Formats: sequence, C-alpha cells, structure tokens
Amino acid sequence: MVNAVEFIARKRDNQTHSAEELTEFIRALTRGDIPDYQTSAWLMAARINGLTTAETYDLTTAIRDSGTLACAAQRVHGRTVDKHSTGGVGDKTTLVVTPMLVACGVKLLKMSGRGLAITGGTIDKLESIPGFCTTMQPDDAIAQVNRIGSAIVASSWDLAPADGILYALRSVTATVDSIPLIASSIMSKKLAAGAASIMLDVKIGSGAFMANVEAGLQLARLMVEIGHRARVSTSALLTNMDLPLGRAIGNSLEVLEAVELLVEPAAADNRLRSLCVTLAAHTLVTCGAVNSEKDAADMVEQRLADGSAARAFEELVHAQGGPTTLREVVARLPRAEMVEHVRAVTGGRVSNIDAGNIGRLSVAMGAGRLTKQSPIDYSAGVVLTCSVGGLINPGDIVAELHYSKGNDQQLLGWKAMLLASISLQDAKLPWKEPPLVLATV
Amino acid sequence: MVNAVEFIARKRDNQTHSAEELTEFIRALTRGDIPDYQTSAWLMAARINGLTTAETYDLTTAIRDSGTLACAAQRVHGRTVDKHSTGGVGDKTTLVVTPMLVACGVKLLKMSGRGLAITGGTIDKLESIPGFCTTMQPDDAIAQVNRIGSAIVASSWDLAPADGILYALRSVTATVDSIPLIASSIMSKKLAAGAASIMLDVKIGSGAFMANVEAGLQLARLMVEIGHRARVSTSALLTNMDLPLGRAIGNSLEVLEAVELLVEPAAADNRLRSLCVTLAAHTLVTCGAVNSEKDAADMVEQRLADGSAARAFEELVHAQGGPTTLREVVARLPRAEMVEHVRAVTGGRVSNIDAGNIGRLSVAMGAGRLTKQSPIDYSAGVVLTCSVGGLINPGDIVAELHYSKGNDQQLLGWKAMLLASISLQDAKLPWKEPPLVLATV
Repeated sequence: MVNAVEFIARKRDNQTHSAEELTEFIRALTRGDIPDYQTSAWLMAARINGLTTAETYDLTTAIRDSGTLACAAQRVHGRTVDKHSTGGVGDKTTLVVTPMLVACGVKLLKMSGRGLAITGGTIDKLESIPGFCTTMQPDDAIAQVNRIGSAIVASSWDLAPADGILYALRSVTATVDSIPLIASSIMSKKLAAGAASIMLDVKIGSGAFMANVEAGLQLARLMVEIGHRARVSTSALLTNMDLPLGRAIGNSLEVLEAVELLVEPAAADNRLRSLCVTLAAHTLVTCGAVNSEKDAADMVEQRLADGSAARAFEELVHAQGGPTTLREVVARLPRAEMVEHVRAVTGGRVSNIDAGNIGRLSVAMGAGRLTKQSPIDYSAGVVLTCSVGGLINPGDIVAELHYSKGNDQQLLGWKAMLLASISLQDAKLPWKEPPLVLATV
Repeated sequence: MVNAVEFIARKRDNQTHSAEELTEFIRALTRGDIPDYQTSAWLMAARINGLTTAETYDLTTAIRDSGTLACAAQRVHGRTVDKHSTGGVGDKTTLVVTPMLVACGVKLLKMSGRGLAITGGTIDKLESIPGFCTTMQPDDAIAQVNRIGSAIVASSWDLAPADGILYALRSVTATVDSIPLIASSIMSKKLAAGAASIMLDVKIGSGAFMANVEAGLQLARLMVEIGHRARVSTSALLTNMDLPLGRAIGNSLEVLEAVELLVEPAAADNRLRSLCVTLAAHTLVTCGAVNSEKDAADMVEQRLADGSAARAFEELVHAQGGPTTLREVVARLPRAEMVEHVRAVTGGRVSNIDAGNIGRLSVAMGAGRLTKQSPIDYSAGVVLTCSVGGLINPGDIVAELHYSKGNDQQLLGWKAMLLASISLQDAKLPWKEPPLVLATV
C-alpha cells in the first residue's frame, strides 16, 4: 500500500514515480482512500515539477484500468477507430467525420463530452436533435456499432473513473494546464474506450485551450507516444483554431451546418469541409484501411458525393431515437425566436475572425456553459455570413445572431462583440489564406 | 474577494503575492470559505516555489490577525517577553528559564504546545504535575501574570486559528519542511500572543526538526526579520541538539530535573544549566531589561543562587492548581513502576549521545506521541547517568529506563537502543566539548 505523504513528497522533490506506485496511487484514489487535499497537493507538485514520458504513460494506463468497462470497443467486429478533438469554436467535425468514416467501412464507438466555456461539446449538439438519446447501455451501444457502424454516447459509463476525480480537482486547483496531466486525461479515456486506432485533433489558437503551437506539438507528441507504448496506432493533427470552424457556432445551428455539408457538400464552407475530409482521410491511413493520404481523401470525397456519408448520419440519428430522415432533422431542430442581422460598419477584406471572441459571444447568448451546472439554449448562436478572405462593404450583413432571451441593451453589446471579432484589411493589399493544418505528428 | 484558483495559479507560476491578497486568502480560509484541496494545492506551490521575505511577513501578520484574541499580552503590565523553542529531546528549558526571568523582573504569558514525535512539549511536562491546569481563560491568565509574573497555558484560545488549519494540512500533504511556512507558523502565534520581545531557540541536530545549521540560520534570520518588521524586539540562538539536553528525557522526569536545577543549581547538569542561563540572559538583553550579556548572566545566576527563581516556579505551579511547595511537587510527581539500570558493555570516553535515538527510545517507552491522538505515559522515560566527555568502564550504569508497560523482549530492545545511542572513544585521545550555542542572530 502506497504511503500518500511519501508519494507526494517524491514528486515534490522532483523524483520519478515507478509504475507500481502510480498504479497503487490511482487504485487508492479510485477506492476513495486518498483525501482530496492529498490528491491536489500531488497534482500541484506534478504540475510544477512535471512527469516524465514513462510516468505519464504509467499514469495513463493506471487511470485507463481504474474502471470496470475498459476496452468496450474490443467487442466491436471490424476495424475500430476513435477520434478526439481538444475542442474549439464551431467544431462540429465529429458530426461529419463519423459518418464519413462509417461510409468508408470503419467503425466508431465514440464517447463524447459536453461543452464547457467557449468550446462546444458533441453531446450537447446531438441532444439539440429532438429525440436523440446520448445515454445508452454499453451492450446496446456495441450492438448498434456492429449493426450500423457507429454510436455516439455521453461518457457516463464506469470508464476510467479516476480521470473524473482528477479532472474535477484540477479545475479548482490551478492544475489544468499541465501537458502530462492533459495527455494522461485524454489518452486514458481513449485507451479505455478501446478502439484499435486513435486520431487526435489538437486545436491551436484563440478559440482553443492552447494558443501556442510549441505546447500543442508537445502535447500531440506525448499523446502519440502514449498510444504507441499502449500498442494502439495513434496519430495527431495540429489544426488552426484562430478562426471559428465553419459558419455556425451554437448547438442546433451546428447540427444544421453538418447536415447541410453531408447533404450538399458543394455549398458547404470550404475550410470546414476540407478539414473534415483531411481528418477522415488521416484516420483511414492511421488505422491501415487505406495506404495513402491521397487515396483516402479520394475515397472520403466519393462517399460524400454519392450520399453514403449522409445516409450513415441519418442511420445514426435514427438509431439513437432521432427523426427518420435528415430532412426531418432539419425541420425539427429547435430555432431561436429572434434572428438579428449584424451589418458591417466599414468595408474591406476580412483578414481574421477571432474564434475566442465569437466563442465568448456564443456563451453570452446562451449557447454555452460557464459552469458545469449552467443551462444551455440549444437554438442560440451565431451564423457568420462573411468568411475570411472575402470582401465586404459597409451595410453588408456579416452575421446573424440567433437568440430567444436578451434585451435591447444585451443585443447592442452582442453586435459590438461580433463586429469587434472581425478584422478588416485594405482590399487592395495582398492576402494569404490562413493554414488549416499546422503540423502532423 | 480573492479568486482562489487565480491565487493558487500565481504561486504556481512563481509570482509574488501582495499583502492584500494574502490577507484576503487567510480571512477566507479562517471563515471556512477555502476548501482543503485548494489550500493544499497552494501550500505545495508555496513549498516548491517559496515565499519572499515580504510575502512571509504578510502571511504571518494575516495569520496573527485571524483570531479574536490577538495581543492578549498587551494587557499585561510591565515588560513582557516570550520564548520559543523549535523543540528537542530533553528540552525542559521553558520550565527553568520562565521562573529565572520572572525572578529578574520580566513577565511571561506563555502559550505552549504538546509534544509530537521525538520532541517533547512543555504542556505535557507540566500536566505530569498532579493538579496542574494548563487550560485557563484569557482574563484569568492575564490576571495571574500581573500578580505573579507568569502563566503557562495550552494554545487553545482563538489565537491565530488560521495557523491550526494550515498546520493540520501541511502534516498530511508533505509541505511541512518549508522555511517560510515554518517561520510564519511560529511567528504568527508568537506575535498574536503579543509580548514586547521574543527570544527564539532554534534547535539543530539529530534530536531536532532541523539537522542542518544552514537551514536553521535561514529560519532564525527569517523569524527575526519578521519580528523586526512587526516592531517586536526579536533575537534567536541556534543551539546544539545532537545531544539530549540534561539528564532526563520524559515528562515527570524532566519536571524533576528542572525543579532540582532551580533548588540545587550546583548539582545540575552543566550543559543544561549553562543553556538556561544563556537563554535567560539573552532574553533580558533582547527586551532591554539589562544592557550587557555579562550583567544579565550575573543577574540570572544570582537569582538562581538566592532561591528566587525556585520561588517563582513554586508560585507558578501553585497558582495553576499544583502543590504548594516544590518539595511536594517532587513527592507527588508520578513515578514509573519499574526502573531498569543499563550497564556499559565496553569502556572509554563518551564522545556522543545521539539525541534522535534517545528521543525515539523515549517514544517507544510511552513518553511521547506518535500521532496527536496517542496516549502518553507521564512517568516513562530515560535518565542518563553518564555524560558526554565522561569516562565509563564496562559494567558502569550509564542510564536508567523508567517504565510501567513493557515485556522482557521490549526491555531488551530498549537497552540495545540506549547502548547504541552512546558513542565511545579511546580515553587517551583528545576530546573537545561539543558547542552549546552554534550561532546568534
């Protein structure tokens, strides 16, 4: 049995924990035998003094094994993949990439989370679809994946419960921003879910948790290394989150954009579509389904064009209790009572749309949560009607604000926030499209 | 109102806290508004990244002001002094120095603690005297000091309660060994007690919390600096705790040794007597009662010789519910059921008596506590009948073990521990008396 004070003292003194002591600590923590004040002292020591790659791997596998439901996806027949995004503003890629991958013949038993602060969550988005149920028993979810290729469920099973304990403490003890602790939190859950390969989308920019490419690379490399040590094919893309992803920010608005992309890809936002294809293609290569990135992208584009990706999403929605057709999904998605147009005051070329500001605006309008307990307005949000690189004139509509609660004064504030998020440059000056993928690990 | 997470993050990032935020934090902590897991995360950040002298001072005054009873000693008429020892093995100096100082005309309202681990506590020692009461109301204690010059009470008043909260957490989160946190803990209580001058006895050696002179000097300098900033005359001696102090280790045995020293100073252990005189003299100079160390030592020796120090102790014991005379104290002190002589196996000159080992032996025999809840046997302990520098022959009695509980096997173990604590050297080799005072701050 680990002596908690000695265990804490070792990390305090910048010593290296053995796999055995990390395993014992996580077991004791899961049993409820370590008081919060000791766990948080250790978290702070680990945050300041760091963890080696070996320690991070050992911590990750100990957390992975802390629940009774590890590796549910191993009961899925066929090639299983998983995808994780570190979260961003307007990031509805899971809703698009999941059916793309299913249409390409791989399987996803996907555990997703809810939104917090400026980053949205897949579960909130799906729950905006009337009837859609995100809580399923493991056996039912596995059976659904075997039948139709995918299931997307809220992370509520007894899956890596030690992560829940650590995460709750980290958020109130200033120990969130530790690369080893972030890596072990993400990878313990992904490894516990049990897919044969994992594709990580590490978002970098004003609308993401990480603003710095260097830190993002460190995190991505550490997570990929943990995956490899655990003998799971793992790769990561660092992608740009300085701009919101696509046009819609807000739960039902994002579902609508995802459905429209699947149904009519030619009309979709180019950057969103391009990132979804890239993520899906990269996943197909990572899991060994396709050999080259080029062939994989062609396959994804073809499944998008022939409607099979749209049908895969239709099947998923229907299987989890939503409407039978995507047409009906569109018709029944909740709509905000008010839609206010925001018009440009000055003209020029849109050089940037600040994702962090747009994220904060959407939270202010009710689309996101400030705390885990906050209620959420599924229909609220922003639709951008201008895009980066485009030209606008004074008086042009640059965005729609969708809301149901809010007085005139709040509305004025929201409009000002929206306009302040859009940077303009002289239309005659040269302009360069911001990158979509910053690095591949 | 301080945001606890931001406050923790500042120390995590090695930034400097302002006086205002430390005060707000300690106020919120005292109100019960900071959960233990946040306090312990901050303690670990402070342990690893440290606190500046200014931060330590601000923390100390915030803790000092956290209770309702700060500065009780300011209601004492006359020159008030306080004395604090960081704790050692056989350290009964408070029992001797207090009446010495009273006999020299200064006043002490002394708050003392109980023993923990190998270091004894003044309160436990006094409570071994039948009838002696260490819990008094503040008004009664102040009245007693005004009447007879001193009172020694257990720290149970609403005096710097924030220290109690921090101290309890530090002991279970591996954050005890921080010089700024130790300094703020000691000095907050001393400043709250409110004497006009403070004399600190920082013990260094195997029988003390600190084994290292450099760390002890840092602690002493920091505490003296805090005292000066708070406009309280403060000085410190670093004293040797490699050897037990005096002959007796154990509660009633130490009271007996203190009484014997006061009644018959010529027969007392030289090192104990010399340290008590030095501490008392140093205190008299620190508080401005006497100008030179030499004059002060002469005054203390004279008050010892003329019996006035013994009378001051007699008055103190009687005022707090103990017997009327010191003769009766000696007669009524609890005695162990068994006294076992330990005899030397080899001969030579005693070059060292390991204080740490003797401390652990006395705890094993029941004289000390391993945890705050452990019971204590007042009569148990060790009396050394050899002294450092002295010559012993095989078969000489080197110590008495006083105990009431213990079987033959335990007794064998205790004897072995006792003999292993005594180092011998060739009687013909030169020998140098170990220093008593290591440094003055």
